[in-house]
Amino acid sequence: MKRTIVTVLPALNEEHRAQIAAAAEKRGFEALFFDTVDQALPALREAEIAFGQSADLAKSSPRLRWLCTPSAGVDQFTVKGVFASPEAVLTNSSGAYGVTIAEHVVMLALEVLRRQPEYSAIVDRREWIRSLPVRSIKGSRVALLGTGDIGQECALRLRAFSPAWLIGVNRSGRNPGDRFDRIVNADQLDSLLPQTDILIISLPSTAETRHMLDACRLALLPDQALVINVGRGSVIDQRALEKELRAGRLCAALDVFEQEPLPAEDSLWDCPNLLMAPHVAGNMTLPYTKDRIVALFLEDFENYCDGKPLHRQIDLAKGY
Amino acid sequence: MKRTIVTVLPALNEEHRAQIAAAAEKRGFEALFFDTVDQALPALREAEIAFGQSADLAKSSPRLRWLCTPSAGVDQFTVKGVFASPEAVLTNSSGAYGVTIAEHVVMLALEVLRRQPEYSAIVDRREWIRSLPVRSIKGSRVALLGTGDIGQECALRLRAFSPAWLIGVNRSGRNPGDRFDRIVNADQLDSLLPQTDILIISLPSTAETRHMLDACRLALLPDQALVINVGRGSVIDQRALEKELRAGRLCAALDVFEQEPLPAEDSLWDCPNLLMAPHVAGNMTLPYTKDRIVALFLEDFENYCDGKPLHRQIDLAKGY
Repeated sequence: MKRTIVTVLPALNEEHRAQIAAAAEKRGFEALFFDTVDQALPALREAEIAFGQSADLAKSSPRLRWLCTPSAGVDQFTVKGVFASPEAVLTNSSGAYGVTIAEHVVMLALEVLRRQPEYSAIVDRREWIRSLPVRSIKGSRVALLGTGDIGQECALRLRAFSPAWLIGVNRSGRNPGDRFDRIVNADQLDSLLPQTDILIISLPSTAETRHMLDACRLALLPDQALVINVGRGSVIDQRALEKELRAGRLCAALDVFEQEPLPAEDSLWDCPNLLMAPHVAGNMTLPYTKDRIVALFLEDFENYCDGKPLHRQIDLAKGY
Repeated sequence: MKRTIVTVLPALNEEHRAQIAAAAEKRGFEALFFDTVDQALPALREAEIAFGQSADLAKSSPRLRWLCTPSAGVDQFTVKGVFASPEAVLTNSSGAYGVTIAEHVVMLALEVLRRQPEYSAIVDRREWIRSLPVRSIKGSRVALLGTGDIGQECALRLRAFSPAWLIGVNRSGRNPGDRFDRIVNADQLDSLLPQTDILIISLPSTAETRHMLDACRLALLPDQALVINVGRGSVIDQRALEKELRAGRLCAALDVFEQEPLPAEDSLWDCPNLLMAPHVAGNMTLPYTKDRIVALFLEDFENYCDGKPLHRQIDLAKGY
């Protein structure tokens, strides 16, 4: 029986599929493409490799050796017992989203600092009001909680706007690519927050990051500080943040939420001083992102075939 | 009688006033501050220097030697006969707005490319839709029509987003600060436009720039090209652009218009594929901009007192 790669990624175009099929064939694999997990079910019974986003791929593949998710976040795969195959390893597509998410972050920062939602409402009313006080990235003190691909691409772009400083926060103490003026350890966060004008969060959802930004930490931020979250919603205590926003003390731009989709009755929908988006910063609608996802998968496919370690393998116990 | 500087700039803070007053005193001038031209009228009769935005300053100052406007644009001063004093020279504050306008330009580009107005409407309806195709500055071909302070600051920031190229268009052929990959002459514009994904206009209003982007030139742009105008509205044939936007062929972000304020009945207000703002990209509400305006004025004040050429003197016949 032929070894198979089952791909369930309707967003891929013909060129992507051809790339995967050609790489598979060279290594004695057959590449099968499906638009839904349901359609893929018979093939998944024998699949050795799966490439797709749904946890059902893990549940439905008893012989799986490797699952690659096109996402950076892996929350849905770290639930116990999600993998039917005891031998399956998981990789993510960390490295595909930095560019698009960094563009989103710069946009959000500028929109909040330049009062764009309010100017947009002014234009909707056909008014000619120009007097809203604005702020600038120039001279702002920027802290980046998370210094992976997303944090690095953000820092690269923000640097061009002449912030006062860009400080990265991580556990390793490493300054990847020298993109940050300084790296501080996560346990120094409490002394960094009072000096932070713009806080950019790109952390994954893990036991360790849950509510890292709780009411106490949020209270450490200076008045009018801007909190941007493009990582996972669980990193911020959403109700505590909402209190600060409603009090007019902080402002925020959130792409991610503790519960997604955000329930229609959630009070956050009409919270002032908040710019929201339905988890779109890193979605796969940008062609460059899709190209990268396929390139990263094929890179690790070569590693897999050569018996080498996979670059983006996830420690399922740690969740990253 | 004491030589006087009459300043009519209510946006200045106490520190700015103190700076001007101290510089004036050192050079044997008295600095007088008013919130309106009306209040300043008696003082303008004898004023040697005026610092303010209104053309009435020029009309009401028969002994004026130097007028400095805090704007970059000088349209209102190039009307014939606006200066009551035959000896008056005009300077502008070109160099104060690059930072804030460049931030605005990057924001506008990202908002249009990332479909932010549509996502904003989705959030207003409390919907969770994530599927809009987005585009990126990365790989985009960017032409900057105007390579002064604004064009340069735009290029500096856009560079960090990895565009395919940044080409500046000017008359001098100079590549200021090497900020552009290449400079082409304005008469090569017709061959540049068909290759341009993002066109950024920061030109002043002059006889030469009027309707430089007319229907023929707009038609040269590729489908879905983005036109951003933060210079002066007269550079674009507004009705011709509106046609392209309504046809869904181009998209645009306009901060400036042929007539300002844009009349409430103008059809542009509800034009699709258009992001509008009421001329706010370079307004003076950013503290950094005000600091720069005062610093540039004081720099030329020293030149004035020393009998040296003023850095930002305008040729009233040319209009820049």
